Amino acid sequence: MVLKYDYNVKLVSRICNLTLKSPNLFMPDTWLSKINWSEDGLIPVIAQEADSGKILMVAWMNRDALKLTVEKREAVYWSRSRKKIWHKGEESGHIQKIKDIYLDCDEDVLLLMVEQVGGIACHTGRHNCFFQKLEGNEWVIAAPVIKDPEEIYNK
Amino acid sequence: MVLKYDYNVKLVSRICNLTLKSPNLFMPDTWLSKINWSEDGLIPVIAQEADSGKILMVAWMNRDALKLTVEKREAVYWSRSRKKIWHKGEESGHIQKIKDIYLDCDEDVLLLMVEQVGGIACHTGRHNCFFQKLEGNEWVIAAPVIKDPEEIYNK
Repeated sequence: MVLKYDYNVKLVSRICNLTLKSPNLFMPDTWLSKINWSEDGLIPVIAQEADSGKILMVAWMNRDALKLTVEKREAVYWSRSRKKIWHKGEESGHIQKIKDIYLDCDEDVLLLMVEQVGGIACHTGRHNCFFQKLEGNEWVIAAPVIKDPEEIYNK
Repeated sequence: MVLKYDYNVKLVSRICNLTLKSPNLFMPDTWLSKINWSEDGLIPVIAQEADSGKILMVAWMNRDALKLTVEKREAVYWSRSRKKIWHKGEESGHIQKIKDIYLDCDEDVLLLMVEQVGGIACHTGRHNCFFQKLEGNEWVIAAPVIKDPEEIYNK
């Protein structure tokens, strides 16, 4: 009986230590399960610049990308073309620092409020990706290239 | 020969009249073809409130919905659940008046800058759909219901 008691005390103490070292270890992922992931396990994500209110871009996340985003407090997406985790800014340095994360009423779109490091979100070297404006029956380029993509990516 | 000339003159005159009455009748739809429609023929659309910069909602459009949106200058979406054209506000009166339309760099997301009639975009009776905010490991309701949905839809 004494042996069993000692064993239990040791076990509880070990779990407490583990929990103190890694607070998320035993946290349930119910917040992740609330999301209506697509059949491919993805969710579209809007990145909005917190200061200006400008919509910077839309990308996708899977569970791992969202968990990493929350842990790092930096936007981590799932690249559908490259089929891998994509820490935004890993090449360009144009990281997105997370201010807040919102989920919509249908739980199938995420909204990140971010600070855009370097002021460039788009791979074309523009501030944001929504630079083609419909004028009459034509899409017109409505924002300048801030930095040549060659310079951004081939440093 | 004279007969053929007369016929051609009449034909040209008729086409000119038609064109004057409906300027879009013979306009090519190249602006629609520029869009990277999904395999289902859809594109995700963000509606952003022009004045406040708030992101109101995300919905979907097909070609017809986008053409109607441009013609009416009011948001017309494709309802994926009901599988039909959905003129936003048709029941609630909460129409979205179009100010501008933008397309992103990959040509697979649209952004509408709108005026939200009635100040309510969400079917829950809230101003916008992104009212669940991540705080720690929990989604917290971060915006009030402005009008009971029962009142909005069962008038």
